[in-house]
Amino acid sequence: MEEKMSSLIQNLIELLEQKKFSQLKLLINDMMPADLALLFEELDKKDSVIVFRLLTKELAAETFAYLDSDSQRHLIDAISDKEIHDVFDRMFLDDTVDIIEEMPANVVTRILNNTDAETRRHINDILHYPEDSAGSIMTIEYVNFRKDITVAEAITKLRREGSAKETVYTCYVTDNRVLIGLVEVSVLLTSPDDVLIENIMETNVISVSTHEDKEIVAKTFKKYGFISLPVVDNENRLVGIVTVDDAIDVIQEENAEDISIMAAMEPIEDSYFKTSVFAHAKKRIVWLLVLMISATVTGIIIQNYENAISAFPILVSCIPMLMDTGGNSGSQSATMMIRGLALDEIHFSDIFRVIFKEFRISIIVSAALSATNYVRILVMYYLGILGDTGGQSVWLIAGIVSFSLIFVIIIAKFIGCTLPLLANKIGLDPALMASPIITTVVDACAVIIYFKIATSWLGLT
Amino acid sequence: MEEKMSSLIQNLIELLEQKKFSQLKLLINDMMPADLALLFEELDKKDSVIVFRLLTKELAAETFAYLDSDSQRHLIDAISDKEIHDVFDRMFLDDTVDIIEEMPANVVTRILNNTDAETRRHINDILHYPEDSAGSIMTIEYVNFRKDITVAEAITKLRREGSAKETVYTCYVTDNRVLIGLVEVSVLLTSPDDVLIENIMETNVISVSTHEDKEIVAKTFKKYGFISLPVVDNENRLVGIVTVDDAIDVIQEENAEDISIMAAMEPIEDSYFKTSVFAHAKKRIVWLLVLMISATVTGIIIQNYENAISAFPILVSCIPMLMDTGGNSGSQSATMMIRGLALDEIHFSDIFRVIFKEFRISIIVSAALSATNYVRILVMYYLGILGDTGGQSVWLIAGIVSFSLIFVIIIAKFIGCTLPLLANKIGLDPALMASPIITTVVDACAVIIYFKIATSWLGLT
Repeated sequence: MEEKMSSLIQNLIELLEQKKFSQLKLLINDMMPADLALLFEELDKKDSVIVFRLLTKELAAETFAYLDSDSQRHLIDAISDKEIHDVFDRMFLDDTVDIIEEMPANVVTRILNNTDAETRRHINDILHYPEDSAGSIMTIEYVNFRKDITVAEAITKLRREGSAKETVYTCYVTDNRVLIGLVEVSVLLTSPDDVLIENIMETNVISVSTHEDKEIVAKTFKKYGFISLPVVDNENRLVGIVTVDDAIDVIQEENAEDISIMAAMEPIEDSYFKTSVFAHAKKRIVWLLVLMISATVTGIIIQNYENAISAFPILVSCIPMLMDTGGNSGSQSATMMIRGLALDEIHFSDIFRVIFKEFRISIIVSAALSATNYVRILVMYYLGILGDTGGQSVWLIAGIVSFSLIFVIIIAKFIGCTLPLLANKIGLDPALMASPIITTVVDACAVIIYFKIATSWLGLT
Repeated sequence: MEEKMSSLIQNLIELLEQKKFSQLKLLINDMMPADLALLFEELDKKDSVIVFRLLTKELAAETFAYLDSDSQRHLIDAISDKEIHDVFDRMFLDDTVDIIEEMPANVVTRILNNTDAETRRHINDILHYPEDSAGSIMTIEYVNFRKDITVAEAITKLRREGSAKETVYTCYVTDNRVLIGLVEVSVLLTSPDDVLIENIMETNVISVSTHEDKEIVAKTFKKYGFISLPVVDNENRLVGIVTVDDAIDVIQEENAEDISIMAAMEPIEDSYFKTSVFAHAKKRIVWLLVLMISATVTGIIIQNYENAISAFPILVSCIPMLMDTGGNSGSQSATMMIRGLALDEIHFSDIFRVIFKEFRISIIVSAALSATNYVRILVMYYLGILGDTGGQSVWLIAGIVSFSLIFVIIIAKFIGCTLPLLANKIGLDPALMASPIITTVVDACAVIIYFKIATSWLGLT
């Protein structure tokens, strides 16, 4: 599919170079806005304006909403006030607000100067809601009915107003602006003409408040499978709707954010290439510093067992294996918690159930790993790969390592499952407690367990 | 919101215990299917059947689709053939197929015996599509028009057939079953009565083939913001549609899968608590074993520098810091690649641009970390926390560690950005190349770099 698209784009660029505008116009006006946006990414500033002007006004506005903010700024700089008006007049309000949030002040002024007063007022309203709130991502293009009109009247209203609305699929019923019900278009269309709206409306309406976090909005869409979700103010008055495509964007962002945080990075807001080298570095440096300093603890612990290491050099060769296996075991458990919390399958109240379950899992896992490791050490020793056992039997050394491994895995899984749940309980993002932090904590525990067991079994002090 | 729901559920359970069925009936029939499913989770088998029978047939069918497979099986065991027929008769085909895929053979037989012949045929068709294909998640309840009917006729058809369709929001236009166009309901409703469908239909229809991977289906929804997507066979005949709620489920699953794979686990299919201890252990053990064996390489490398370690014990204390920082730096880059590939922002052809960008990022990051680390070693040394410098100046030792750190970070970011891109190129899941594997590879590189630099600067051989 992607290859077909990029060869189409190549074709279009050739037509543009050969100035075959009428043919170009025909082709591009048959494309989807999202695909046109890909074409614009390939064009320079001058060509962008040419192509943009070949689009119908409707398609131009839709495509404009899909462009990245650089291209949008370039186009706004190049087109006339009249054209700006045409674009923003046809755009849905949530898209307009998204664009305005990304533009420098002078461009914003120019956009606002070319939208009518009412739209300007609505834009200001939406810009006022806190970032990441339901209000900030909603749109005000929805259809609402009074409860005392008939189905026939409602359909007439829908047919008259419908095309200007971002979604007509769910219509809302309001009484003095207060949300009192909803009617799915499918229900509306399949009801007899003379029935009153109040007799077919669904009165149990799920809505969110304007200040609700957009993550909750996304969760609500996931749970109920809605196409749109009404947004209400403190007095339950309908002020807007969030549509499913915006909810998908939120889900997408939240996932990208979680994955970044789990890898000890602050999430970037733009695309990888659009984010500058310096901005990337900034997002990564803080956590690396914190973790670097924390990791020195493990080093100092190892150093304290200097004597054991010089007496039994073979002990050193197992440190990375113990650290890595501990870190990986802990990360696995932490990841299961992060996933479970996100999917609402696990709650803090389940902590003891979780600990018990992880304990049983770690028994099975550690038994298998420990046995494999025992054999591994013997084989490597007799192949001459491992170092000096310091006069001790290799069976004893292998026993120390494998016995330590059992405890390391059990402790790692305990830390891995409890830290994310605790973080969540105190209001931190559980994803923060993923791999890197777990690894750092588990590393220190792993070497302590290892050297405690080694010194005691080998009779060192 | 969640607290309100759980107190409501407590209320309902009390009503059930007090046998206040009429009051209970009133309340539950006003609830959303997704919320009712939460109630069923709290009920035992006997109570489930009671509550289920208090629901209207419509709501009972909808709720049934939301239940987990254990509850579904229990209910099917308890209800009559007539009731089974009522449930599945009202259910959308994609939900029916989902349920059938989870049930044991005898239950499947009972379900199929109580559905009519045509539905049975359709179920068999869908069950035939490969797992994870568009065909396997589609539904056949859609509205289609001939191109030569008028808007008025189309609306009449919609009003007659609509309620039985999972989505009526986008109607498809077919000619001899071949998909030739689509009409949004909003367009249909706002067009004059006597216009022909072929004059208002969108002819540039994006569709997927039945065998397309469901990940592509999800990507298509994300890109275009559709409500539904038509599924066609090899001859471009319309065979079904995928609706946006199912696409959200796929996005959700893919994300959970990615996160599991990134933590070196095979993804679990069921919820955390529903998956048995043994099944959890099985999903985790293989990767831990592979990584455990790989990590021994790092140990053996360290062991080879036994002499350097015993001459300069201070060197040991920095190994965990170098390993962890290298691992974390590499994971950060790998995560950016996994994210970029998933969002279609990065492609294999960008590999040199990526390497150059990561190189510049690693220069900035490593300069900051290296300088901090230099100071850290001096401070810790003069505080008496660090071990013996073996007669060398602590300035030199700090220099060795900090200089190594620069190379470790550069190499880590190089490995971190190239491995996921290469994995993706050869058709592997890039998420496989996340944290654990990167860490293992980077660990080995880190100790080699470190000891090469140390032995050369300290004049050891």
